[in-house]
Order: sequence, then C-alpha cells, then structure tokens
Amino acid sequence: MERDVILREVGMRDGLQMVKSIFPTDAKKQWIDRAVAAGMPEIEVCSFVPPHVVPQFQDHEEVVRHAQTHPDLLVSALVPNAKGAERGFMLGVDKLNFVVSASETHNQKNVKCTTEQSLERFDQIMEVRASKPEYAKTEVCSGVSTALGCTMEGEIDPKRVMWLIEELLKRGATEIGIADTVGYANPAQVKTMFTNAIAAFGADVIVAHFHDTRGLGLANALAAYEAGCRKFDASLAGLGGCPFAPAATGNVVMDDLVFMFEAMGVKTGIDLDALLSVREILESNLPDEPLHGMVARASVPKGFVPASMAAAAE
Amino acid sequence: MERDVILREVGMRDGLQMVKSIFPTDAKKQWIDRAVAAGMPEIEVCSFVPPHVVPQFQDHEEVVRHAQTHPDLLVSALVPNAKGAERGFMLGVDKLNFVVSASETHNQKNVKCTTEQSLERFDQIMEVRASKPEYAKTEVCSGVSTALGCTMEGEIDPKRVMWLIEELLKRGATEIGIADTVGYANPAQVKTMFTNAIAAFGADVIVAHFHDTRGLGLANALAAYEAGCRKFDASLAGLGGCPFAPAATGNVVMDDLVFMFEAMGVKTGIDLDALLSVREILESNLPDEPLHGMVARASVPKGFVPASMAAAAE
Repeated sequence: MERDVILREVGMRDGLQMVKSIFPTDAKKQWIDRAVAAGMPEIEVCSFVPPHVVPQFQDHEEVVRHAQTHPDLLVSALVPNAKGAERGFMLGVDKLNFVVSASETHNQKNVKCTTEQSLERFDQIMEVRASKPEYAKTEVCSGVSTALGCTMEGEIDPKRVMWLIEELLKRGATEIGIADTVGYANPAQVKTMFTNAIAAFGADVIVAHFHDTRGLGLANALAAYEAGCRKFDASLAGLGGCPFAPAATGNVVMDDLVFMFEAMGVKTGIDLDALLSVREILESNLPDEPLHGMVARASVPKGFVPASMAAAAE
Repeated sequence: MERDVILREVGMRDGLQMVKSIFPTDAKKQWIDRAVAAGMPEIEVCSFVPPHVVPQFQDHEEVVRHAQTHPDLLVSALVPNAKGAERGFMLGVDKLNFVVSASETHNQKNVKCTTEQSLERFDQIMEVRASKPEYAKTEVCSGVSTALGCTMEGEIDPKRVMWLIEELLKRGATEIGIADTVGYANPAQVKTMFTNAIAAFGADVIVAHFHDTRGLGLANALAAYEAGCRKFDASLAGLGGCPFAPAATGNVVMDDLVFMFEAMGVKTGIDLDALLSVREILESNLPDEPLHGMVARASVPKGFVPASMAAAAE
C-alpha cells in the first residue's frame, strides 16, 4: 500500500493509560487486528511499566505477541527506563519509545527526575540494547513532550527542544516525536518548529504528536505537514491525554486526521470506512469514556473518494 | 484597533435561525454591546425575512437600530430578495448579504428558484438600491453557498463558483463569501479555491465562511489565511447551520478562531477574554442548545499573550 504519510496509532497506549477501567485483552487484540486490516502501519500497543503503576498494561506480553502475528505491522511500545526497555528488547518489539520533557518542571512531575537524568536513562536503555546482539533489531526512539508549551512553565524555548532532539539522536534514537502534550501549540509555531527540526535532522526522524485540547489539533497537523513532516501520531476517537497535565485531554482524532489527509489527496494507506468501524470496539468496551470524532458523527461527504482508494483503484 | 484579519460574527443570524426558541431582544442587544466592547468589527444581526417564515428575526428593526448606536460597528443583515433588501435600505444598515448556492439543487431547496433566477433577484435588489440616493450608503454583498461541496450534488465544479463570483461582482456586489455550507471542504481544496479567487478578484472582496461539521473548520480557515484571505465569518460558540443541509451543524467557533489567529501572531483586534465572557449570554438564553468551543473549556495557555493585546501594549 502506497503512503504519503505514516500515521501511528497511539490510543492503545496514550489513550488507555488515561482510562480507569481495565480494557479487556481480547478487545485490544481485536482493535489491533481491525486497525491492521484497515491499513494502520504502526501501533503503540502498550507501555512497559510495572503493573502496580499502570494496571492497564499488565497484559503487555500477550498483547505484544498478538500484535507480532501481523507481519506488516510495526509494533511499538513506550518505556520509562532501562528495566522496561529490557522487557521490550526480550519480546523483540520493533520500536521502543522513550519520553523526555522539554519542560524541566513537567519532566520532574512526569518521571521524577531532571531532563539531564532522563538523558542518562536513555543512555542506560541503549546500554541494555548493546548487551545482546538480538536486541539490535529493536529501534529506540523518543518523544520530546511539552515541546510546544507547558501548563506549568508556559512557553518553552525552541532552542531547548532542538538541543534535546540533537542529544537524543546523538545517543542513538532513530526517530523523535515533537509532542504538544498539553495542546498549547498554534500553527505558526508548529510551522517554524517543524521547518527548523526537519532542516536540521531530516523528515525521516521527525514525528508530530499533537493534542486537540484547544481545537487546533488538525490545523497544527496541517502546519506540520506543510513544513514537510510525514509522520503523525493520533488516536482512534481521540482517546488520550497526560495524567500530569491538567485538561490535556485528547490526542488528535485519528479518524478525522485520516479524513483530512485523504480528502487533501494525501495517501495514508488507511481505509477510512474500515477505520471508523473500529470505533465499535471502543464504544462497547469504554461505555463511560467520551469518544471524539467529527467524521464519525457527520459521515464522509457525498461522493467522497479517499486518495488511498483512488490510488488503489488505478 | 489594528487588525490583520477582519472577523465577522454571524451567529446572531446563521446561528439563531437554527434555534427553536425565540432569543430575547434584550439578550441580542447585550450580545451586540459586549461583542462590540470585545472588539468585534462586524455583526450580521438579523435576516430580513417575513416573521411568519423565521419568527426569530421579527425584532429586526429594534435590533438593527440598537446595533447602529455603535459607531464603529459594521452592521450587516441577510436578505433573501428585493423586498427584504428594501427593509435593510430603509433602515440604513451598512451591508446586506444575499445568498446564492453554487449547487443548483441546493439553491432550489434553499430559496426555491434556479441560480440564474437568484442572480435576477440580486439585480432586483440593486435596482431597489438605485431607486433612492440614500440607499447608496448600504453595500450589497453575497455569499456563494455550497461552494466547496453539496450534500445533494456532492462535488461542485470550482469553475461554477468562479463564474458566480464574477457575475455577482459584475452586478454590483462588493464582497463575496465563499461558503462551505455543509462542512465538506478540505484544506487543499480551500487553498486552491481561495488562491484562485483572490488572484482573480482581490483579497478585499473575498470572505471565508466555513462550517466545522467534519472537524476541519479551523484547518480550512488556516488554509484560506495562507492563500491570502483576510476576512472570516464565524459564530460565537459555533452556533449555526443550514435547515436544508442535513448534519450541517456549526459554524466555525469564533472564540477558537480568535485564539488560533492571536496565538499565531495575527491580530484580530478582538479581546479573547472579553469575547469568551459573551458566551454567558448564550448559556443563559439557550440552555438547551449545544455550545461548542475548545478554548472556552480548556482556557488559554499559561502566559498566553494575544497578538492584539501585545500590539496594544506597545
């Protein structure tokens, strides 16, 4: 399947970590199966954290092994430290995502250490990776959270974000997510940040991770796309947030993002109708969670032909 | 007040025409007063239609006269025909907005005549305007609705939109709204349409009128801005829609649009905090209507300084 942009489903991790009830393992497997069938190229399936910290991911081994039955799926997972990373290396996931905050204060709240200490933790992960040859098949990546603003510090110096990206790449990361964790970003800021980051580090290593807290999620995604970004995180029905960032509800809605790109002629390789139907799994397993998404409510325009479908029909 | 873009409040007309309960005249006056105090440069205060068709606007004379007490406010109103327009000319409103649909089918449903007949009605309005010298102080403008897609016809040929704009300008219109009445537009389509329209007719005469039906309202506004558009319709709390366009709920949310522009450094001349407080009037008078707006829910970012406020402080 031809793709102009790579979309990464993060709702199963970023979304479910915010959900109080335990999402059934079988439902996670169904979600993976149906997202893959719809064309989703990459899913962050869990976080390797101790079950007593986030019980939602106690089934991580079973979920990862199931995801790995799909040969075309890139299976990724979040890791907070070397111990979690070792679980990921042992399971042979394709990609591990570490997180460090551009905001010193947010980093302290989120992972209880300074950003410098977070960089040391990243080094420890890379040391574990180097300890066994079979671990080398797993890429290690990182997100830079609160990169476009912080609820505690307010504005974040873009130079600090550039410095963190450079440090992480130097230490072996192969992809960096620039994350608007709390939905503070605006399109002008995004365009400048992504233009500079892509000029310095290349489009291959930069990922956009936006939240829709203040309604600008899709406008920011558009601005990042125009700046040359071709990798985007989003979550089905906009599940997600950050437990330490007040009101930071809602990743960009994956289904609406797919609609925007496909309508613009930008091929996501994802079948929008098939993706929209995956929402059923969330509806039946998360009856008390607010599910977002405007296309799901309004349906696609009359006569709408997604770019990916048009390309496939040629 | 310096402005980089002109925002036009259409919720009082496009929004209230969808509301079943009669919005109290005093509340309309308060809305006007507080919107003007917040810096709103233009408000479409009513539609000149017979009270038995839309009872919501039976108080149009009182509302218009009140709006006219604000010397800096551009007072506009919708008119379906020459009879309605004559009311507007007699009251001396600053601007009358006519509407014709790019979709023949939508025009038939909306105003029960062909688009050619709509153009003749526009001519009749201009004839009435020419009949008395004092009518000349009122500008006549038009919206081209369903310009970016129609729930009945699907895609609309952009050439037809360009033709309609040209016809309306030739017949004396001084400003044309390109309206995505049913929320079908995408940013790539918007960028092309607005780039072409502005190249052909100039930025002064082109207005963007978007609905947020499929979540792309702000992304489309961004695309139009990037294409050179500097005039935008929106409605407080996203009130609005079209009775003949199924699921066409919600104009772009004015408060979120102001936030987007001000955050980008684009001066709207509107005080966002003051504007957000105007929502109280809708909350207390429309208890059963869904009010939209992400900034109202999440509040502005910590340390946020709107571009207009920064400029005023210099």
